[in-house]
Amino acid sequence: MRIYTRSGDKGTTSLIYGERVSKNDIRVEAYGTCDEANSMIGFAASLITNDTVDWDDKEEFLQELRRVQTVLFHVGSEMATPTDKEVKWKLKKEHIDELEEQIDRWDQQLPELTNFILPAGLPASAALHSARTIVRRAERIAVALQEELETSFVISYLNRLSDYLFVAARFVNVKCGGEEFALEIE
Amino acid sequence: MRIYTRSGDKGTTSLIYGERVSKNDIRVEAYGTCDEANSMIGFAASLITNDTVDWDDKEEFLQELRRVQTVLFHVGSEMATPTDKEVKWKLKKEHIDELEEQIDRWDQQLPELTNFILPAGLPASAALHSARTIVRRAERIAVALQEELETSFVISYLNRLSDYLFVAARFVNVKCGGEEFALEIE
Amino acid sequence: MRIYTRSGDKGTTSLIYGERVSKNDIRVEAYGTCDEANSMIGFAASLITNDTVDWDDKEEFLQELRRVQTVLFHVGSEMATPTDKEVKWKLKKEHIDELEEQIDRWDQQLPELTNFILPAGLPASAALHSARTIVRRAERIAVALQEELETSFVISYLNRLSDYLFVAARFVNVKCGGEEFALEIE
Ligand code: B12
Ligand code: B12
Ligand code: B12
Ligand SMILES: C[C@H]1O[C@@H](n2cnc3c(N)ncnc32)[C@H](O)[C@@H]1O
Ligand SMILES: C[C@H]1O[C@@H](n2cnc3c(N)ncnc32)[C@H](O)[C@@H]1O
Ligand SMILES: C[C@H]1O[C@@H](n2cnc3c(N)ncnc32)[C@H](O)[C@@H]1O
Ligand SMILES: [Mg+2]
Ligand SMILES: [Mg+2]
Ligand SMILES: [Mg+2]
Repeated sequence: MRIYTRSGDKGTTSLIYGERVSKNDIRVEAYGTCDEANSMIGFAASLITNDTVDWDDKEEFLQELRRVQTVLFHVGSEMATPTDKEVKWKLKKEHIDELEEQIDRWDQQLPELTNFILPAGLPASAALHSARTIVRRAERIAVALQEELETSFVISYLNRLSDYLFVAARFVNVKCGGEEFALEIE
Repeated sequence: MRIYTRSGDKGTTSLIYGERVSKNDIRVEAYGTCDEANSMIGFAASLITNDTVDWDDKEEFLQELRRVQTVLFHVGSEMATPTDKEVKWKLKKEHIDELEEQIDRWDQQLPELTNFILPAGLPASAALHSARTIVRRAERIAVALQEELETSFVISYLNRLSDYLFVAARFVNVKCGGEEFALEIE
Repeated sequence: MRIYTRSGDKGTTSLIYGERVSKNDIRVEAYGTCDEANSMIGFAASLITNDTVDWDDKEEFLQELRRVQTVLFHVGSEMATPTDKEVKWKLKKEHIDELEEQIDRWDQQLPELTNFILPAGLPASAALHSARTIVRRAERIAVALQEELETSFVISYLNRLSDYLFVAARFVNVKCGGEEFALEIE
């Protein structure tokens, strides 16, 4: 099957179950932004994979990121399912618990913060900061969609995921010797 | 001539032919997003250029990306031209045909898909996925602008370009030994 | 203190001084986008830091980028402060003067332009182009917020910052041997 169908050339597209909507629909905006966040997480992962520097648990860290990429398809699936239809890949409370547990594990190994830090450091760390901010953009759009998703875990998941990516960014810096700059306002 | 003119410091700017509009105008949003997509394509190209790994037709691949970057200025030019004025760099059907032919050429060399893949792999591949998702954001904004561009190829071009970048991302992974992960939902 | 508080799981959050607003509020959109731009600047800096190629004034260049990252927190602070409250980290005219002086210093060392260039070149240069376009996105949102920020330097600063990043991108290419492609429309 060809990847291009030309069926969206007039500006409409279909949700899961087939309903046609404008590409400018808030649902499309929402899962499109998850796709964008997902790609930036994949980019961060690619930098770590291809980095010559090795560290213990590097493979575990990469598996973590792939896990998060996978769960983002659950998020997208909720956003792409019309309100009155059953969600096929439903987000569960456990997906959020997973994130919290991992945040706690990483956080223990990091110096405590009492200030903002400059989003920077190693390339992989900075890419995780970029991903963090795109996830937050997705969260803002999800909030605009909120009424139609009321009983779901989408907003909580995205909220927690941005904290997870913040801690992941710091963790990479600490593990691989990236510098962390605290914000200094004159 | 200085690059900064300070003339936009109050929040307005000019389209082609000089008409002043708010920087918050949908047209500015549209070509500004094409500029953002263009930059990410340039970033992917820069990773390939500077990669020590060489592959046959690497230079050809880079020329392809520069071609697409150039055509995005046609797209921007349509978006920046007021409805009643002549577009100076007009997008043509041939620009879309070009994309389809290249997609077909690359696709032949790729394993068929029956599932989503995680946007990841080599850094250049992941950057192409990022560019793909930004092009899709530009497409969504173009749809909001649709009435004013009715007879143009802008939406079709952006629609096809995102498929092109998807295939390009996969192609780089295959050519240079990046790993492709199929989505696995438990 | 834990980084995740769960208090934003229902879709609201707080500004400076504590007022609760929807995460979909235009102010949150505005400083969230500055955060995104900031992360991309940090990413460009990380590529320069970790590049094996050394050039004179590389450390100075990096300090410049950190300076800009810091000032973006002033911008964010203005955006996150309710209209009737005092801004704690106020943006000053001097912050814009700084940018203009640096643009002039760099520009002197660059070939004059009479055409668009493809946003590309070295990875750090292309990343600065990406950052430039995200800053322009932040500027567009700031314009939508304009009435509430009327007496501030936010729009001027973001306007100038995008020109600064354009020149910085070109400067990196020139200093480190990246290629610059002028736009060629057939
Ligand atoms: C929502 C959606 C998305 C979301 C993601 C979904 C999510 N859950 O988060 C996003 C925005 C990320 C997306 C992206 C893309 N998508 Co999409 N997407 C859909 C849509 C509307 C629903 C899919 C879904 O989630 N189904 C839920 C599950 C439970 O149901 P399912 O149908 O069994 O899902 C299976 C297949 O649909 C899919 N699949 C089967 N064959 C193929 C072939 C390809 C090439 C791909 C990518 C997927 C795919 O794999 C799923 C099994 O895991 C379908 C169209 C439709 N109405 O069904 C298109 C669809 C699957 N997408 C398609 C395409 C082309 C893409 C993109 C390549 C577009 C682009 N240029 O960026 C990318 C690929 C991204 C990637 N990483 O692989 C095409 C595939 C055409 C084909 N068979 O070759 C479809 C059929 C739309 C169409 N054009 O008609 N998509
Ligand atoms: C639309 C537009 C854009 C679009 C792209 C256009 C497209 N077709 O997709 C986008 C958003 C990408 C853009 C970006 C920028 N732009 Co612009 N853009 C315009 C605008 C409104 C129309 C240009 C156009 O497409 N004309 C269509 C062609 C057919 O007509 P043309 O006038 O003959 O076009 C030629 C020149 O305008 C241009 N050119 C001539 N001298 C210079 C000098 C510089 C520094 C640049 C970048 C271009 C440039 O080259 C074209 C020939 O190929 C003009 C202002 C105006 N009203 O004309 C500004 C203008 C050309 N842009 C300008 C600037 C500064 C920029 C940016 C540096 C801003 C930034 N900080 O990001 C970037 C540079 C991007 C790059 N890659 O080089 C300035 C140039 C000032 C100068 N002479 O030094 C102008 C004149 C606006 C102004 N401030 O008054 N821009
Ligand atoms: C606006 C804002 C932002 C803006 C930036 C602000 C700007 N000026 O541009 C943006 C969007 C960038 C941001 C991002 C983040 N923020 Co914030 N932010 C705020 C907010 C609303 C105001 C902060 C501010 O600018 N104050 C102005 C100065 C003058 O006042 P101040 O209060 O003395 O500011 C000091 C502290 O607030 C801060 N600080 C103190 N302890 C900690 C701990 C952490 C972990 C961090 C990040 C900051 C921090 O350092 C400042 C001194 O320089 C506060 C909540 C609030 N209502 O106060 C949250 C707050 C500081 N942010 C918080 C968090 C968690 C984050 C993020 C990690 C979220 C994420 N996942 O991305 C990131 C971190 C970014 C980074 N680079 O470090 C938490 C910190 C919780 C904690 N103590 O552990 C707070 C308290 C919100 C909350 N959850 O209750 N934020
Ligand atoms: C750290 C601060 O960031 C703001 N905040 C909370 N959620 C988001 C989001 N999705 N996008 C941007 N900003 C957000 C709040 O003001 C919070 O206090
Ligand atoms: C692959 C799926 O992505 C959705 N889709 C189509 N065009 C866009 C776009 N510009 N942005 C985001 N999502 C889009 C449709 O639902 C399509 O079926
Ligand atoms: C170079 C051209 O870019 C447009 N322009 C000015 N400011 C912005 C912005 N924030 N975002 C996108 N485009 C902008 C104007 O049309 C200007 O002339
Ligand atoms: Mg949060
Ligand atoms: Mg499409
Ligand atoms: Mg400007």
